[in-house]
Amino acid sequence: MNNKTITAPKGFLATGLFCGVKTSGKPDLAILHCPTGAVSAAVFTTNKIVSAAVTVCKEHARNAKTYAVVVNSGNANTCTGTKGFAAAKLMCAKTAQELNLKPQQVLLASTGIIGHTLPIEKITAGIAKAAKKLSNSPGGGLAFAKAIMTTDTRCKQAVRKIQIRGKIITLAGTVKGAGMVGPNMATTIGILTTDVAISKTMLQKALSIAIGKSLNRLTVDGHQSTNDTAIILASGLAGNKPIREQDRNFKKFANALTELCTDLAKQMALDAEGATRMFTVVIHGAATKQQAFIAARAVANYDLVKCAIHGGDPNWGRIICAVGSCGVKLNPNKLSCTIGGIPVFRNGRSVSFNPKKVSRIIRRKEHTIVVNLGVGKYSDFCYGCDLSREYITINADYHT
Amino acid sequence: MNNKTITAPKGFLATGLFCGVKTSGKPDLAILHCPTGAVSAAVFTTNKIVSAAVTVCKEHARNAKTYAVVVNSGNANTCTGTKGFAAAKLMCAKTAQELNLKPQQVLLASTGIIGHTLPIEKITAGIAKAAKKLSNSPGGGLAFAKAIMTTDTRCKQAVRKIQIRGKIITLAGTVKGAGMVGPNMATTIGILTTDVAISKTMLQKALSIAIGKSLNRLTVDGHQSTNDTAIILASGLAGNKPIREQDRNFKKFANALTELCTDLAKQMALDAEGATRMFTVVIHGAATKQQAFIAARAVANYDLVKCAIHGGDPNWGRIICAVGSCGVKLNPNKLSCTIGGIPVFRNGRSVSFNPKKVSRIIRRKEHTIVVNLGVGKYSDFCYGCDLSREYITINADYHT
Repeated sequence: MNNKTITAPKGFLATGLFCGVKTSGKPDLAILHCPTGAVSAAVFTTNKIVSAAVTVCKEHARNAKTYAVVVNSGNANTCTGTKGFAAAKLMCAKTAQELNLKPQQVLLASTGIIGHTLPIEKITAGIAKAAKKLSNSPGGGLAFAKAIMTTDTRCKQAVRKIQIRGKIITLAGTVKGAGMVGPNMATTIGILTTDVAISKTMLQKALSIAIGKSLNRLTVDGHQSTNDTAIILASGLAGNKPIREQDRNFKKFANALTELCTDLAKQMALDAEGATRMFTVVIHGAATKQQAFIAARAVANYDLVKCAIHGGDPNWGRIICAVGSCGVKLNPNKLSCTIGGIPVFRNGRSVSFNPKKVSRIIRRKEHTIVVNLGVGKYSDFCYGCDLSREYITINADYHT
Repeated sequence: MNNKTITAPKGFLATGLFCGVKTSGKPDLAILHCPTGAVSAAVFTTNKIVSAAVTVCKEHARNAKTYAVVVNSGNANTCTGTKGFAAAKLMCAKTAQELNLKPQQVLLASTGIIGHTLPIEKITAGIAKAAKKLSNSPGGGLAFAKAIMTTDTRCKQAVRKIQIRGKIITLAGTVKGAGMVGPNMATTIGILTTDVAISKTMLQKALSIAIGKSLNRLTVDGHQSTNDTAIILASGLAGNKPIREQDRNFKKFANALTELCTDLAKQMALDAEGATRMFTVVIHGAATKQQAFIAARAVANYDLVKCAIHGGDPNWGRIICAVGSCGVKLNPNKLSCTIGGIPVFRNGRSVSFNPKKVSRIIRRKEHTIVVNLGVGKYSDFCYGCDLSREYITINADYHT
């Protein structure tokens, strides 16, 4: 069997179903279960306004072992006051009750509209139903992936396998998020599973590295939501000697996790609201690493660049304009830019190029813009996607 | 006669015509002439990449007297190297030659696509032609206003009259700019005229105040272009005693200029690429004035807010999300928001409101969003406009 879902690593059961939060009737409740208990790690939004789910999840993530994750879509449970906090607590308590756990052994995430009271009765009834449907089959994993979606048009899943000391380690993940996606996490709910044996400290370290190079490098509309959450559970059932500090296998694991998360981030970019293609912005020659990132994000976020890419238009002037106005140090006489490897701008001057050829590159599913600021030795990157009429259509009427 | 153009103040002649820069055949060259000489002041983009026109204009703006302003649209003369610099110089030299001036008595601005060589022969031929057409009639001013437009769908003009010590002072202006418009100036070419008698220092001060409260408070897509330029010429022919430092009439003049520029900024917002309506974001309760502005700009720039406003959707969650993620200090338990005066969010909680009523307010030509961050006493504001499918259509294929 070829399981491409979060139930691929050993030790995980999952499911998803419709419990009544979404008016569309699409799946809106998902549970992941690790009956033997997992080491967990998590990263969250840095938005100053956060969902009650984030507050509760942060608290529960400190627990040594995690046995389950419950996620609802369709309602963010954000700006919902003490009632929202109680509802988040109840989601964990109900899941714990159904699976014979303590509430703090359950993590949670919510995603959807902000400021609406969570229909908690529907969710608790759904949890009772879902707990009976949990399965380690690909079907269980797929149902989970579908139930966390909001405006996503397809579910995003990825699996990686590596060997550590002769043992096969499986890593898997699913993410949702299509709009309200900006660096320092996309509007992401990311749920990752692995059967590696690893300490909690090292798992958190690996997750921070992986998210830092993937989801935190993705921008759809420049803003992080109030609910961004990425969680990883490691069941330890692969049988490897547990990875602890100064283990040379840590790097191997962290790299595999980064690859997995990059795959998921690119799937998100390509399924961003209205997006038809994605692109990577690489900045070289920056004065600091942070300035390299600021410039990369400025280009990836710039609506005029995103529109030009949508139109397959090699309008490098907008790229130059974006880096020029984002506040980073640059040398106007050394500033250079390539699109898909083709120089379009060098040492502050336009370069003659074949616009049709560059346009064909831009129209691909994925291409890379490289800008050299000409002042230092630092580099960084960001993923972005084009901006289409469809984005407006989706977002002009989401609420009503 | 009722002159609503930049030739309304005493002492100004203007014209505009098609010289061959634009492929559309629309007017692309404009000249303003003040035969008696004017005191001038100017403000420019802070983008680190600037047009050759900006470089030359900055130099000429230091001159005590200005007699003419020449503007071309359709080509930004940016990233065009030494050739571009020579072309900018030649634009002034040719205008000076035709009008019997010194080159440094001529200011200039260019707007349009970046990185293309300016067709300077067409422009110099156009200047010779335009110099013979200069007129102090409303027709001359209107021709000027039309010739500076790029993707603008209509020309923006405004006139104000005030009395200073019994003398009638006239102020007038025209601006262009519809995309690539972000605080610290819109993609603006703004040309202002007045017949007030005023010192160069005080004119510069008045212009800085007025632009700071108007064009620098407007964001269409969050980025300032490489060419943003606002110029004011004061002929001094109104006959008032010249305004110098510590003159109590300075405030009256600066207020009138601010009003005029605000009127022009709002016209720009309403004519922004694809825009159907505008809005003002007011931030109260910020820890510093700068943080108030950052938060106001974050809301006005946030694509999801702009889309919601396009859809007439009272989706305050996105407003809260924008202020939460822009990095400013706020108190989540005191955060409050009103739309068109109607409370939608108070002390960190949603407030029950009539969504149809709020939607009707949003669908007006203009409405105001007020957010209180709940941490300090500082306020600031920003103007924005909605984001429509039309913006994408305009910007996906501008180049080709």
